[in-house]
Amino acid sequence: MSSTARQTLAQVFEGTGDYRKAGHILDTALIALIMLNVIAIVLESVPSINKVYYPQFLLLEVISVAIFSLEYLARLWASVDKSKYAAIKGSNAKRRLHYFLSPLALIDLIAILPSLLMFVFPLDLRFLRVLRLLRVFKLTRYSRAMQLLLQAFKDEASSLLAAFFIMSVLLILASCGIYLLEHDIQPDKFGSIPAAMWWAMATLTTVGYGDVVPLTPLGKLFGGVVTLVSMGMVAIPTGLLASSFSEQIRKRRQFFEDAVHEQIHQGSLDDSQRLHLEELRYKLGLSKLEANKAIKTQLNQRNSHLFCRHCGKRQ
Amino acid sequence: MSSTARQTLAQVFEGTGDYRKAGHILDTALIALIMLNVIAIVLESVPSINKVYYPQFLLLEVISVAIFSLEYLARLWASVDKSKYAAIKGSNAKRRLHYFLSPLALIDLIAILPSLLMFVFPLDLRFLRVLRLLRVFKLTRYSRAMQLLLQAFKDEASSLLAAFFIMSVLLILASCGIYLLEHDIQPDKFGSIPAAMWWAMATLTTVGYGDVVPLTPLGKLFGGVVTLVSMGMVAIPTGLLASSFSEQIRKRRQFFEDAVHEQIHQGSLDDSQRLHLEELRYKLGLSKLEANKAIKTQLNQRNSHLFCRHCGKRQ
Amino acid sequence: MSSTARQTLAQVFEGTGDYRKAGHILDTALIALIMLNVIAIVLESVPSINKVYYPQFLLLEVISVAIFSLEYLARLWASVDKSKYAAIKGSNAKRRLHYFLSPLALIDLIAILPSLLMFVFPLDLRFLRVLRLLRVFKLTRYSRAMQLLLQAFKDEASSLLAAFFIMSVLLILASCGIYLLEHDIQPDKFGSIPAAMWWAMATLTTVGYGDVVPLTPLGKLFGGVVTLVSMGMVAIPTGLLASSFSEQIRKRRQFFEDAVHEQIHQGSLDDSQRLHLEELRYKLGLSKLEANKAIKTQLNQRNSHLFCRHCGKRQ
Amino acid sequence: MSSTARQTLAQVFEGTGDYRKAGHILDTALIALIMLNVIAIVLESVPSINKVYYPQFLLLEVISVAIFSLEYLARLWASVDKSKYAAIKGSNAKRRLHYFLSPLALIDLIAILPSLLMFVFPLDLRFLRVLRLLRVFKLTRYSRAMQLLLQAFKDEASSLLAAFFIMSVLLILASCGIYLLEHDIQPDKFGSIPAAMWWAMATLTTVGYGDVVPLTPLGKLFGGVVTLVSMGMVAIPTGLLASSFSEQIRKRRQFFEDAVHEQIHQGSLDDSQRLHLEELRYKLGLSKLEANKAIKTQLNQRNSHLFCRHCGKRQ
Repeated sequence: MSSTARQTLAQVFEGTGDYRKAGHILDTALIALIMLNVIAIVLESVPSINKVYYPQFLLLEVISVAIFSLEYLARLWASVDKSKYAAIKGSNAKRRLHYFLSPLALIDLIAILPSLLMFVFPLDLRFLRVLRLLRVFKLTRYSRAMQLLLQAFKDEASSLLAAFFIMSVLLILASCGIYLLEHDIQPDKFGSIPAAMWWAMATLTTVGYGDVVPLTPLGKLFGGVVTLVSMGMVAIPTGLLASSFSEQIRKRRQFFEDAVHEQIHQGSLDDSQRLHLEELRYKLGLSKLEANKAIKTQLNQRNSHLFCRHCGKRQ
Repeated sequence: MSSTARQTLAQVFEGTGDYRKAGHILDTALIALIMLNVIAIVLESVPSINKVYYPQFLLLEVISVAIFSLEYLARLWASVDKSKYAAIKGSNAKRRLHYFLSPLALIDLIAILPSLLMFVFPLDLRFLRVLRLLRVFKLTRYSRAMQLLLQAFKDEASSLLAAFFIMSVLLILASCGIYLLEHDIQPDKFGSIPAAMWWAMATLTTVGYGDVVPLTPLGKLFGGVVTLVSMGMVAIPTGLLASSFSEQIRKRRQFFEDAVHEQIHQGSLDDSQRLHLEELRYKLGLSKLEANKAIKTQLNQRNSHLFCRHCGKRQ
Repeated sequence: MSSTARQTLAQVFEGTGDYRKAGHILDTALIALIMLNVIAIVLESVPSINKVYYPQFLLLEVISVAIFSLEYLARLWASVDKSKYAAIKGSNAKRRLHYFLSPLALIDLIAILPSLLMFVFPLDLRFLRVLRLLRVFKLTRYSRAMQLLLQAFKDEASSLLAAFFIMSVLLILASCGIYLLEHDIQPDKFGSIPAAMWWAMATLTTVGYGDVVPLTPLGKLFGGVVTLVSMGMVAIPTGLLASSFSEQIRKRRQFFEDAVHEQIHQGSLDDSQRLHLEELRYKLGLSKLEANKAIKTQLNQRNSHLFCRHCGKRQ
Repeated sequence: MSSTARQTLAQVFEGTGDYRKAGHILDTALIALIMLNVIAIVLESVPSINKVYYPQFLLLEVISVAIFSLEYLARLWASVDKSKYAAIKGSNAKRRLHYFLSPLALIDLIAILPSLLMFVFPLDLRFLRVLRLLRVFKLTRYSRAMQLLLQAFKDEASSLLAAFFIMSVLLILASCGIYLLEHDIQPDKFGSIPAAMWWAMATLTTVGYGDVVPLTPLGKLFGGVVTLVSMGMVAIPTGLLASSFSEQIRKRRQFFEDAVHEQIHQGSLDDSQRLHLEELRYKLGLSKLEANKAIKTQLNQRNSHLFCRHCGKRQ
C-alpha cells in the first residue's frame, strides 16, 4: 500500500523505529553528496580546472540536482507521516504546507532552485551557479552541536541586536568624523561618508586592512580613538556569548539533576532508569564523572531523608 | 484647559495610561524620522547625489528640525506632569530645569542645535552639518536591551577605567620604545613619540593597519613583543564584560526567584500574581521554561514546609 | 623632635590618622607632576617643539627630579615609622633596607635614576631620557582598581604562562612552516626563521600588518591555517581572564556574605556593625542593592533558626 | 641484575620513590637540551650564522640525536616496569607495544626520526631538518598547567568543532560572494574561489592583512558585512573557552570540597589528613585562603550536626 511505503520513508527520514540504521546511512550519503557539491563548486571556479573537467562538473551537477530534487519531493510526500506533522489536524495538504514552510524544507528548496532555474531557462547565470553553494546550509540538519551553538546566539538575540545597534551608531559617527577630517586631503578615499565607512568598518572590527588610513595628525588622533573604541566593540559580542555559553552549561547540568531527582523515587535506581539517565547525559554533553556525582548526591540525600539524622531510625 | 492638554501630552510621551498606543505610534514615527535623517546625512555627503537632490535634502532638514524642535519644546513643556518630575517639590520652572539638564533632554537639544545655528547664522559650516548626526543618540531613548548593555559597562566602570589606564601606560611605553629603535631609520614615520603612537595604537588594539611597521631587527623584536602584549590588552575588556554579563544574568534570575518567593504566601499563586510574574519574567528577559521551573521549585518547597520534616505530620 | 616629624611624615605618606587630607593632597600633587612629566617627555620628542621649548623642558626636568628625589628620600627616611615596617624587629637600617627593596620603592628609584645619571655624567643619552617615562609606573601606587585587575593576572599566572608556552611553540612551528614554503620566492622577507617570525607573530596575534604575506598557493594555504589557529590563540588569554574576573566577583560577594554572617550574632545589627559592613561593601565594589539583600537574607535565616519552623515557638 | 636496573630507570623516568630528585634533574636536563635544539634550529636558518657555525650546529645535532635516541630506547626498555604498563597482562613485548603507541612515545620518536633518516640517507633534506623542531612537543610532557589548558579544549571539543564548521561554511560563502563581485575587476586576486579564500580567511579571523581588498562599491559593502560577521566568529571560540575555564575552576573547587567532606568523619582533621588536603589543594591550583574556608565551613557544618536541630541536645 502507498500508505505503508510513505510511513516507512518517514521513519527512514526521521531515523526512528526499525529504520534507525537506514536513516543513518541515508544521512551520511547525503552529507557526502553535499560536501562533494561544495568542493566541485569551489574547484569549478578555477579557470584551468574548469576548462579540463567541465563535462564532469556538469554531470555531477545534473545528478546532484536530480537526487536533491527527489529527496525534496520524497520528504514533502512523507512529511504527513512524520510524528511532528501527523499531530496537526486537517488534510494532508495542510500538513505538507506546514512542512513546506518549515525552515529546513525551505533550505532544501533553496538548494535546488537555482540549478532548476538554470536548466529551465537557457541563461548561464554565473551568479545563480554560485547560489548552489547555499546547499551547505542543508548540513545544519545534521549537526546537534551546531544547533546548541545557534541556541546561544538565539538566547542572546536581543542583547546581540542591541550590540549591533551600538556598533551601527559608532560606525556612522566614526565615518562622519574621519570624513570631516580627511576628505580634503584624500578625496579619493574619504570622499563621502559611505566611502569613509569602509575604513570605519575595518577599524571597528579590528580587521584593519590598512589600504585606507588617515594621514593628517587630527585624523590619526581620531583614528587612534576609534581603534580604542574597537576593543570595546569586539568585547561586547564575545562577552555576551561567553556568558550565554556558561548559562547553557549550567542549565544543562540543572536539567540533568532535575531528571535524576525525578527518577529517584524510592531511594534507588533500576537499570532502565540508569539507561535513561545515561542517554540524557550523553544528549546534554555532560561528563560521566559529573553525572555519577549528581546521581550519588541525590541518592544520598534521598536516603538520608528516610532515616532520622540523629537517632538513625527509619522515619 | 491647558493643564489637561499638558497632562495628556505627558502621558503620550511616557506611553502610560490610556495613551499607551498613541505613545507607541509617536515613538515609531520619531524613530523613523531619525533613521531617515541619518540616511540623508550619509547620502548628502556623496557629491554626485548631493548635486542632484540638494533641494530635497534641504527640505527634509528644515522639516526635521521643525519637528524635533517642536518635540523638544513639547517635552520640556509637558515634563512638569511626568511622574518622575511631578514628585519634585517647587515651581514648574524648577522641574523644567531638572528635565532640561537630564541626559535625554540634552541629547535632544544637541540634535537640533547645530541646524538651528546654521539657520540663524548664514555660515554653511559643514562641520556643524555632520553634528546633526548626533541625532542617532536620540534612539537610545527607545532601546531597553541597549540600556541593559550599557548597565554592564557601568557596573564595570572602575575596572574598565583601570584597564584603560594600563592601556595608556603600555601605549606610551610602546611608542617610546619604537621611537628609540626606529626613528633614525624612518624619521618620517617614527620621527617623534606622538607619531610613533599611531603604530602603537594600531598594534595594541590588534587592528594592525600595516602602513607603518618597524624595519630594523631590534624594532621588529620589540614590535613582536608589543603584538604579544596586545593579546593581553584585548583580553581585559572582553573578560570584564563577559563576567559582568554573567553577573547580570545571575542577578536577574535571582531577582525573579525572590519575586516568586514573595508572591507565594499560601503555597499557591492566583491569576493576578501569575500575570505579575509573567510581566516581570518578560522584563528581565528570562525564558518561560526557566521561569516555570523557578515557580514550581518554590511551590514545592512551600508545600514541603506544610509537613513536618521529622514526624511527617501536617503542620 | 625629629621622631615626631618623621612620624608625621609617615602618616602623611600613608594617609592615615589626622593626616588623611594632607596625604590626599600630596598624592594628587604627585600624580599631577608625574602626568606633566609624561606629557613633557612625549612632546619633547617632537623636534619642532623641542627646538622652541628646550629650556622649559629642562627646567621642568630639573625641578621634577629634585622633587622626586626629595620624595624618595623622605619616604625612605619615614619608612621606619610606617605601620607595615614598624612591626619588623631590628634596627631602623634594617627596616629601611626592607622598604628600599620593596617594589614601590624600586619603581620610585628607577624613576629618578636615569635623570640623576644624566646630570652626573655629561653624556646626553637619549635612551636614558626616555627611561624617565618609567615614572608612569609610580602611578600604580594610587589605583586600587588596577591592583584588582593585576590580581586577576596573578591568579591565572600559571595558566597564562602555559598559554604563553603554547603560543611560543605555535609561533616557532608557524615560522618554520612559512620559512620552508616561502623563503625561495621571497628570500628578503622569509630569508630565515627569525625573519619569518615577524609574519608569524603579526598573524597569530591577529594584528596582521600585511607588510609581509605569503605569495605561493601552498604558503597561502598554510597561512590560512595559521590565521585559523590565531583565533584559538587569542581566545585562550581572554577566556582565562574572563573566568578569573568572574571568580573574583564571586569571591568578593562570598567574602561579604561571610562578614555579614560573622557580624550577625544576635539576629540583629547595630549601627557600628552596619557602618563596618558598608565600608567593606564599598571596598569590595559591591552594589548597595546586593549588599542589602545579603544582610536581609542572613538576618532572616538567623531569626528563623531561633523559632521553630512549624509551631512558631522560640527554640 | 638487569631487572633491578630497569626498575630503577622506570622510577627515575616516573620521578617516584627514592628517585624523585634524580627524575627531576633528568627532566630539567632534557628540557634544557630541547630548548637548546630549538634555538639552534632557528639560528641555523639564518644564512650568515649558519656559514660560520655550521660545524658547531652539526655537532650539537649529532649529540642531541644520540641523547634523544638513547632516552627513547631507555624509556621503551623501562616502560614495562612503569606502574601504568606493569598492570597490563601479557608479555613485556605487548607492554612495550602499548608504550610504543602512546602519544608521548610517538612524539619522542618523531623528534628523532627526521635526523636519523638524514644520517642514514645522504640526502640533505631541509624539510626534514625543520621537522626536528617537532622536538618542542616533547615539552608537553613536563607542563601540568598546559595539560589543564588542553583539557579545556577537549571539554569543548564538540562545540569547537561545530564552531569550526560554521566558520567553514561562512568562509565558503564569503569567498563565493567576493569572487562574484570582484573577479571581473581584480582577476589576479579574486580569479577563483580558492584565491578569494585568502581574503575571506584574513577577514573572518580579523587578521586583515590588506594585501587583497575589494575595490568595487558592492564588493566593499559585502566586505563590510563580512567584517561584521568576523566579530561573531571570533567571539564563539573565546566564549566557549571562557565558559569552559569557568567550569574547570568550579569543578576543581567542588572536587576539593568533596574531598574535604570525605576526610572529615569525626568533626576534626588529623595531621595526615591535612597534609593530604594540602597536596590536593596544590594540585588543583586553589588558593590557601579558599581551601581553608572550605575546610572551616565543612567542620562547622559537621559540628552543627552533632547537635539536634530541634531540641538543641547533643546527638
